[in-house]
Amino acid sequence: MNRIEIKPPYLIFLGNETELTYAKTGAGLVEWRPELCKGQIRLEGGTIDLGIPDMTLDQAVTAGIKSLIVGTASVGGAIPDQWISLLEQAINKGMDIVAGVHSKLNDHLLLKQAADTSGSKLIDVRVPPPNLPVGTGVKRTGKRLLTVGTDCALGKKYTALAIERELKAASTSINATFRASGQTGIMIAGEGIPIDCVVADFISGAAELLSPNNKEDHWDIIEGQGSIFHPGYSAVSMGLLIGSQPDAFVVCTEAGRTHIEGWPEFKLPSIEEVIERTIQIGSQVNPDIKCVGISVNTSTIPDTQRQTYIEELSKRTGFPCFDPMIDGTSRIINNMMEQS
Amino acid sequence: MNRIEIKPPYLIFLGNETELTYAKTGAGLVEWRPELCKGQIRLEGGTIDLGIPDMTLDQAVTAGIKSLIVGTASVGGAIPDQWISLLEQAINKGMDIVAGVHSKLNDHLLLKQAADTSGSKLIDVRVPPPNLPVGTGVKRTGKRLLTVGTDCALGKKYTALAIERELKAASTSINATFRASGQTGIMIAGEGIPIDCVVADFISGAAELLSPNNKEDHWDIIEGQGSIFHPGYSAVSMGLLIGSQPDAFVVCTEAGRTHIEGWPEFKLPSIEEVIERTIQIGSQVNPDIKCVGISVNTSTIPDTQRQTYIEELSKRTGFPCFDPMIDGTSRIINNMMEQS
Repeated sequence: MNRIEIKPPYLIFLGNETELTYAKTGAGLVEWRPELCKGQIRLEGGTIDLGIPDMTLDQAVTAGIKSLIVGTASVGGAIPDQWISLLEQAINKGMDIVAGVHSKLNDHLLLKQAADTSGSKLIDVRVPPPNLPVGTGVKRTGKRLLTVGTDCALGKKYTALAIERELKAASTSINATFRASGQTGIMIAGEGIPIDCVVADFISGAAELLSPNNKEDHWDIIEGQGSIFHPGYSAVSMGLLIGSQPDAFVVCTEAGRTHIEGWPEFKLPSIEEVIERTIQIGSQVNPDIKCVGISVNTSTIPDTQRQTYIEELSKRTGFPCFDPMIDGTSRIINNMMEQS
Repeated sequence: MNRIEIKPPYLIFLGNETELTYAKTGAGLVEWRPELCKGQIRLEGGTIDLGIPDMTLDQAVTAGIKSLIVGTASVGGAIPDQWISLLEQAINKGMDIVAGVHSKLNDHLLLKQAADTSGSKLIDVRVPPPNLPVGTGVKRTGKRLLTVGTDCALGKKYTALAIERELKAASTSINATFRASGQTGIMIAGEGIPIDCVVADFISGAAELLSPNNKEDHWDIIEGQGSIFHPGYSAVSMGLLIGSQPDAFVVCTEAGRTHIEGWPEFKLPSIEEVIERTIQIGSQVNPDIKCVGISVNTSTIPDTQRQTYIEELSKRTGFPCFDPMIDGTSRIINNMMEQS
């Protein structure tokens, strides 16, 4: 398969990190895929504890660990020298190494040589697979939901993961798969394609590959990227929308955000505008596309206001609204099932 | 400047080609930039004559040729072995080599070594420049027209070049520059960015770079790519539209085309749909965006029908319509000037 694939179970490498904010990837993995995260390993000085068993590399081998995942980011995105010795040992013991830092594992001579010798893989999740196709637009079997946004960084990945969890846990136990389009999502899913790193001609083709044909009652829950209204990243969102052919979408937004983050001259599009434009564009490849709900990150407003905020938004738009961190995503399941 | 740049004057290399259809790049260069094409050179067996002086490499040096441009494409896009000796000699004489074939000049060991020694550049016009920025959306000075399409390969480059020529030749001699976004266009312009080869995150940023700040009365005439309705290439068109911030656009189409070429399940969007969607998306970065005309390739219908076709289309849409190969582009100049 022409996608990045990460072999479980995982050992989470936390370097000598002392601040949780730099270990978000590791924390996300443990939150969303606890069953795959068998252990953690630190360098001297590191203090982060993700609440899973500490392991030496030898214990990891005994536990059947297949991949060491770099769960922390260094400032600047480099691979620090003090990581190398441990990563090299893990490679020599046959583990794959997985990282989403800016510097590529495969560009590091020592690690590359060790991997060539041991047969381990160095998986740079920011590097898309080779030979991606051009999008065909041909309708695929199975159902698809895409999380779209008014902007970047307001919960598209979280919402998709929360919907997948809810579907699987539903009394009807709906068959669903989270489809990752960004680096952290790929680590959580164990596979995926970093859509924003794909060459322009192949964006929708990559998105098609990401959610292949499936059983008629199966739902792919696809992690969205950027926003079709974004002055920098709209092309990424466009290609992902066209290639995903979603039957359903959820608009993700953040309470109180007024402008595109980092682009202060650009007002945040309204939720209604995002719904209308997403339907216009999405219907080019799937005439049945429908908005099924609105996911709101309400962490930015006082606790006392959030329920009112969500209720008023729901009344105004006519769609079920929810903060996935507080309400879960059950409110949209009925809407989704009507699509089937 | 972070763009591909080709130094004139040019010597057009025609290999041992015998069919003009494989020498389109060379023919296009001579058609649109005769003043830059000082000579042509063939290998034994080649029969193509572009109507410009034949030159040996030594004569080219004497004539001050700066770049040898590969004006022909081999089947499969490789660099044939029989080309190498002549290309190597040209490199040794200090000429840059420019090509848009699939195989990269810079990946050819012998050519690369020769270029490293002589200081010549090997310019692969299908390779975008490094370190492209993310789009800012910040409004730039000067005026911009973008050619958009109902599909690929129906005259967006030709229309843009024809408009540039018409503007420069106008009695008012309007200050205008053709901005190339594809390989042949880049060879004709001598500079540009191959937008469809740019990584997703940087498409609109590349488009911004392509048409930088300019004098208030200056027009950039930007070569469009693909179509925002295209199931394979819509992301390219989206990023180019957002980054170009066009004040004006021309819709390019082909008489009689009913479906997206190569995607038989997809009906060609109507011209009205393309206008509406282009304005919707383009107004995100330029609220003044306007359609100024419709360019129709009528070579597909009988000569006797084309005038009626153009007239009826003009009546139906309310926009000036023209076949740039027959009518020129003067009909839209007034419309453009109203934008100023």
